[in-house]
Amino acid sequence: MPEQAAAVQDFYPEDVAHCYGCGRLNAEGHRLRTFPDGEETVSRFTPAPYHTAIPGYVYGGLIASLLDCHGTGSAAIAALHREGREIGEGDAPRFVTASLHVEYLKPTPLGPELEVRGRIVEATDRKVVVDETLSADGVVTATARVVAVRMPAHMVRDADQTSPGG
Amino acid sequence: MPEQAAAVQDFYPEDVAHCYGCGRLNAEGHRLRTFPDGEETVSRFTPAPYHTAIPGYVYGGLIASLLDCHGTGSAAIAALHREGREIGEGDAPRFVTASLHVEYLKPTPLGPELEVRGRIVEATDRKVVVDETLSADGVVTATARVVAVRMPAHMVRDADQTSPGG
Repeated sequence: MPEQAAAVQDFYPEDVAHCYGCGRLNAEGHRLRTFPDGEETVSRFTPAPYHTAIPGYVYGGLIASLLDCHGTGSAAIAALHREGREIGEGDAPRFVTASLHVEYLKPTPLGPELEVRGRIVEATDRKVVVDETLSADGVVTATARVVAVRMPAHMVRDADQTSPGG
Repeated sequence: MPEQAAAVQDFYPEDVAHCYGCGRLNAEGHRLRTFPDGEETVSRFTPAPYHTAIPGYVYGGLIASLLDCHGTGSAAIAALHREGREIGEGDAPRFVTASLHVEYLKPTPLGPELEVRGRIVEATDRKVVVDETLSADGVVTATARVVAVRMPAHMVRDADQTSPGG
């Protein structure tokens, strides 16, 4: 059961573990957790009743958020694996989003747990591209491509704005 | 001052005014408000301190959410104008998102009010394409293209999942 295991976000360094979408240290946020699952990656999240679009459906901004953070988490997993490491073997590398492209295929019903799955389509030391699906009750309602890039070290130290980061 | 004027979301019909991003009837949500501004559209939003990515920067999911709802709001304004109406002259038409493509150009500082601007690049009765910028302190940190489609009438009545909607 991957949910019982460690998520990659559990091993983000403390100073970069505050993301509203996936930071374990953000008490207000979604705290999305991402796991390897064979050749894929998986995250699961149950929206709150107020995460509404048209009543009865999940709002597109939450869907985009989940796909975004699943992308950076998947990139971190891919980077660990490229280094021959598993989750828990040292800090996980931190990626930020360079681009996010979401196709909303059909309305996503509000209520069921959502499952986000990722597949790495390209990975270098600096950049990882992840193709994703989001599904509810086994029906894919959105797809995405995320381009994630390794977080520039100076993002932690100062407010320099010269590098991508979502 | 457009903020003193009526926003297009003020005139969404009551049964479709609950979007977490822009619904005036969602008490938990962002309640984004979108205004015409010459040939453009504009929305403004100040993130909360917990809308963090890497500390000091706005999380990409919020940025995607603002660009998403600004897109559907801009589409509604474009549709009103195509009908020769202004905001406040009857209900505003409701659009949903078919696709959202965000380019994160640089980190967005957390603190200042964010400004989202849109420009209509294509508009038919059914579909509106909006190109957008998001800026903080006058610096554009993200761009987006949103494809919005008119909400299918059945989305209000049932859980039919055959049509796009984000």
